[in-house]
Amino acid sequence: MITPAEIDAAAQRVGAYIRVTPCIELEPRAFGSPATLTLKLEMMQHTGSFKPRGAFNRILSANVPEAGVIAASGGNHGAAVAYAARTLGHMAEILVPEPTPDIKVDRLRRYGARVVLTGANYAEAYAASLERAQETGALDVHAYDQVEVLAGQGTLGRELERQLGALDTGTLDTVLVAVGGGGLIGGVAAWFAGRVRVVGVEPERCSTLHSARETGEPVDIDVSGIAADSLGARRIGNLPFLIAQPYVESVVLVTDEEIRSAQRNLWDRLRILAEPGGATALAGLLSGKYQAKPGERVGVIVCGANTDPTRFG
Amino acid sequence: MITPAEIDAAAQRVGAYIRVTPCIELEPRAFGSPATLTLKLEMMQHTGSFKPRGAFNRILSANVPEAGVIAASGGNHGAAVAYAARTLGHMAEILVPEPTPDIKVDRLRRYGARVVLTGANYAEAYAASLERAQETGALDVHAYDQVEVLAGQGTLGRELERQLGALDTGTLDTVLVAVGGGGLIGGVAAWFAGRVRVVGVEPERCSTLHSARETGEPVDIDVSGIAADSLGARRIGNLPFLIAQPYVESVVLVTDEEIRSAQRNLWDRLRILAEPGGATALAGLLSGKYQAKPGERVGVIVCGANTDPTRFG
Repeated sequence: MITPAEIDAAAQRVGAYIRVTPCIELEPRAFGSPATLTLKLEMMQHTGSFKPRGAFNRILSANVPEAGVIAASGGNHGAAVAYAARTLGHMAEILVPEPTPDIKVDRLRRYGARVVLTGANYAEAYAASLERAQETGALDVHAYDQVEVLAGQGTLGRELERQLGALDTGTLDTVLVAVGGGGLIGGVAAWFAGRVRVVGVEPERCSTLHSARETGEPVDIDVSGIAADSLGARRIGNLPFLIAQPYVESVVLVTDEEIRSAQRNLWDRLRILAEPGGATALAGLLSGKYQAKPGERVGVIVCGANTDPTRFG
Repeated sequence: MITPAEIDAAAQRVGAYIRVTPCIELEPRAFGSPATLTLKLEMMQHTGSFKPRGAFNRILSANVPEAGVIAASGGNHGAAVAYAARTLGHMAEILVPEPTPDIKVDRLRRYGARVVLTGANYAEAYAASLERAQETGALDVHAYDQVEVLAGQGTLGRELERQLGALDTGTLDTVLVAVGGGGLIGGVAAWFAGRVRVVGVEPERCSTLHSARETGEPVDIDVSGIAADSLGARRIGNLPFLIAQPYVESVVLVTDEEIRSAQRNLWDRLRILAEPGGATALAGLLSGKYQAKPGERVGVIVCGANTDPTRFG
């Protein structure tokens, strides 16, 4: 389990490298909701998602060997590890599945990473990264199933709570968090530890936490749909699941169309361009799948915007 | 002249209708600048630009007749007046030049306005709006050359200063503001009244304030270029010019390519999608046209994002 004290320590560790991302408190009845809504604009974090929080904390917690760091991910996690490694002066090797689009590979290379295309899918690339780490001695940075990574993501919950303390609303009743492998919700739930209602929002077609709750343990599922590139882990992490069991109150499922609608609403009403995974938490609210009560103070994490604007809509 | 007290009063008046838009304080050396940069994310204001501040203050300061309000603008000002009128339960008539694209006309109609296409250009539509206002008795809301409008836009400067007071940087040395007709810079300069260096940034091809300063008075100029749809007033307003003379320290000119580069930087590093006019203030800094000193605390107003994401890039 991750304690709030570990998250405090993580916040100290990563503070110099991480942006304090802004919040916006919305007007009454924004999006037609009876709740008081605050959006946490984490898509403005370095590399366009929350992932550097965990990556920096993992790397700064270790004695990094000559071989540097290694991770498996063609997406937001890979970019965050590459960015953090370069910032801290370490080598980074990022293993990505062979079908990864050139645009994502190029992005990793621009952050200075050595990119290796291997395996047909994420699981194969991840297995290869573990083997490779054994060969080189590089420090592996997992996308969600590591204590330091979870503690790093938890700094987002801590930061949100501090920011809301400074706003008129005082504090928070509920926070909505999108779920893929569970790194973000695990960290955030560990921070609040039951003091605030944490609700997971998953695409119907990437329902790792919902499926694990139904089964009673993490299980492999098939993933697809518009948010799969950021939320498409095949199963919830073991550590996130352990944290979620006591501290995530409920999990709601949203359709791809509900995610698209949340993306459109974010643009039309706030000029925020979020990727599907970044709009998923809001989709939980706008779809009515999570029913907020009048006056309930709800925080919604907009956790990523790694999308091509020209393909929006 | 507009006094800070008038801007305080405007802030009270519009407070219930205007979003407090967030700021983000950037890391040291962000964009390679030696300054400490804070971006004011005003593109998240209702209707996607700062314009509702002035529109609400003008309308709330008046006894609005049965005929409602009237304005000439196919762009951000028109949208703001339509939005404010609908919010406050008034009719709005918006006169737009005949060449206005359907997408802008539709947007005004979605805000509930009666849209009249008239005249070959803005000047003709504006002249028609004055005639029409005489006929109907509607309250005219000018885009920049009215005391109440300027005081409303000045609330942005007031809000920025208050927000920075709560941040680590303490306060502000300089604020960079894009200039079209001068409503925003006039209001902001009136708020700071010499306490903070106010620098105007204009596209080379829409240089109303620069031209007026060279001539010694507002003059008509030809406008063109990528920011003309939001910054393309043909001359600086008389009131903004009067305020700018003592309180705007300097005006720098940027090219369309420098504006595009600022837009790209905002997206690549912060996932902010701004319209050309919204990125113009930042272009003043990134282009080196405004040379910030090491440690100088610079606020940059990102004032609008009414752009089509799919056409970005």
